[in-house]
Amino acid sequence: MLPTMADTHPRITEARLHPQLEAIFRAWGFPADQAAVSADVLTAADLFGIDSHGITLIPLYDELVRSGTVATAPDICIVRDFGATAVIDGGGGFGQAPSLQAVDLAIDKARAFGIGAVAVRNSNHFGAAGIYALRAAERGFVGLATTAVFQASIVPTHGREARFGTNPIAFAAPAGRNPPFLLDMATSTVALGKFKLYARDDKTMPPGWALDQTGRPQTDPNQALVDRLMTPLGGVRESGGHKGYGLATMVEILSTILAGSSYAPLRAAGAERNDVGHFHLALHPEAFRDKGVFESDLDALLEALRATPPADPAQPVMVAGDPEYAARERRRRDGVPVPRSLLAQVQGIAERIGAEFSLAETAGSEPPVSR
Amino acid sequence: MLPTMADTHPRITEARLHPQLEAIFRAWGFPADQAAVSADVLTAADLFGIDSHGITLIPLYDELVRSGTVATAPDICIVRDFGATAVIDGGGGFGQAPSLQAVDLAIDKARAFGIGAVAVRNSNHFGAAGIYALRAAERGFVGLATTAVFQASIVPTHGREARFGTNPIAFAAPAGRNPPFLLDMATSTVALGKFKLYARDDKTMPPGWALDQTGRPQTDPNQALVDRLMTPLGGVRESGGHKGYGLATMVEILSTILAGSSYAPLRAAGAERNDVGHFHLALHPEAFRDKGVFESDLDALLEALRATPPADPAQPVMVAGDPEYAARERRRRDGVPVPRSLLAQVQGIAERIGAEFSLAETAGSEPPVSR
Repeated sequence: MLPTMADTHPRITEARLHPQLEAIFRAWGFPADQAAVSADVLTAADLFGIDSHGITLIPLYDELVRSGTVATAPDICIVRDFGATAVIDGGGGFGQAPSLQAVDLAIDKARAFGIGAVAVRNSNHFGAAGIYALRAAERGFVGLATTAVFQASIVPTHGREARFGTNPIAFAAPAGRNPPFLLDMATSTVALGKFKLYARDDKTMPPGWALDQTGRPQTDPNQALVDRLMTPLGGVRESGGHKGYGLATMVEILSTILAGSSYAPLRAAGAERNDVGHFHLALHPEAFRDKGVFESDLDALLEALRATPPADPAQPVMVAGDPEYAARERRRRDGVPVPRSLLAQVQGIAERIGAEFSLAETAGSEPPVSR
Repeated sequence: MLPTMADTHPRITEARLHPQLEAIFRAWGFPADQAAVSADVLTAADLFGIDSHGITLIPLYDELVRSGTVATAPDICIVRDFGATAVIDGGGGFGQAPSLQAVDLAIDKARAFGIGAVAVRNSNHFGAAGIYALRAAERGFVGLATTAVFQASIVPTHGREARFGTNPIAFAAPAGRNPPFLLDMATSTVALGKFKLYARDDKTMPPGWALDQTGRPQTDPNQALVDRLMTPLGGVRESGGHKGYGLATMVEILSTILAGSSYAPLRAAGAERNDVGHFHLALHPEAFRDKGVFESDLDALLEALRATPPADPAQPVMVAGDPEYAARERRRRDGVPVPRSLLAQVQGIAERIGAEFSLAETAGSEPPVSR
């Protein structure tokens, strides 16, 4: 079998990736604790195979820092606290540090009250939503995380202009002998990365993924990448697209309206910050079930799902999280494949901002791994 | 234009529908307060145009009562209370009465703690999920309601047997000058009713809605109605079906695992009750925002969405809930269209169980309304 493109990428171990990311966030001016948290979240995404939310974010984040859209020494503080809920102001920085604080506060509240919810306002891109939900599950709590997105890409059903970002929903729950259930999904039909794969392979996309500027299905991936008009999950109205549109709206209500952030299409022209909002929720299984029973019942559910007779015996039924855990095992062993072009971009950024660049390829040290 | 089938159905006013439903629940043996709540929920669904969850449920409910699968004098009680959360045991009856109690308790807890969550176990079919979420929104709270379903119909991605019911998610939020946002969606691609429409019109269904017994797309609506193998929202894997599958699992975790109910495919053979679980959550906007600001910000969001340029000027962009509110306005004025065959079935049931039947057509009193 010919190697896939990823097989020819340099492999970066977790032990090298994390300090490089941390050094970049510090060189941008972030305090050490915030830089560490941002590096944690991006590294976790790369290990999980969520390539769109790991080191690949560095060029976008650099743009945000250079344009002043993101504050690099944000003052993160709790601005409301009401029993089992709170609101955190992210101070205009990236979303990782205030979101981690929000998850931990929601967990504390869930421990005390059975449930806790913490909204974050005045924030920015927070990385992969699943990392926050998983943090709750790894500590024994059911976790839910949603975020708004500052760039619109999802088109409401029957419309022809984008009104939402990919507005993801992440949900995680702790099991016993299984790793936590972990759902992390954009409320669009497919990710932008899928358009890129079709463009690379010069293939026509199925109708129902993207729209053209008149609101009709767009099957040319190159034009879809220019227009960025994505259908909500379900595609067109007849195949349930209004449900994905409804879910994207639900995410916007939880992340933006509840937190008191800006709805991107209505953000004041010339506003200094993106003012993105997030929502984090934790539920304590022991408030509902005897100790350990939630986890063993979830084991039984997950195992029953994996035991569903498959349509194709070569492709067994999985549960959400299975691909991510498999990727993490593989990448912890073999390293994270990073395209040379991206490494060069990151090197350029590191050199400009005065961060040490430690991911230069050493001949023979990390040869391409063939699987 | 030829009249649609619905135009030829008798129209039943809310004032006649509700007492008829209530009389049937009472004749089955339900206490007066529970019968009234069940009638409220079914009537509300019929007014909203959710025809699958109104009076049409009476024959199914009658089967459940006759088979002893549902308890007709259930003892509903709070079995756990942990600050902002609680668990209610439905006593084996229908889900309406314990769910209404759960929503109201979640609201009380949200008023005190900012958020409240109440799970219901040992319950049964609860009607349309949206009615519960809307109850919270009508009282000024953000509401979320989910339920498991005792009959499996959704097939996990890559599988060929059903492992979930239609596992709906309902979410509602209070606005100011607009009616509440109201999302009520099954996590399947389309409803079974859609298969029925295609069967009636002798049309081939698009691939991606249903599967055959080998796990391949089923486009014959008649066979799809026999097999009842539905795809999760998104359809096949490539168009995002794994996301709908993940959402259905999330609903099962919240409704069944957290509540301590039975996951239908693992329910003990010969179990007397269906032991269905539900999950109800309420959030207090005033715990997050100054009084009135959540509602006015939601107005701005909803109005911005409706103002999205439409693909077809004749079909403006709507928000979730708009079709339901329009149906309610129409049906409050004109009555609920009920097929004669269904009325005859309900009459047969009423006569057998000793409930007065009050929906007999009076010539000329409620002529078909043409729109």
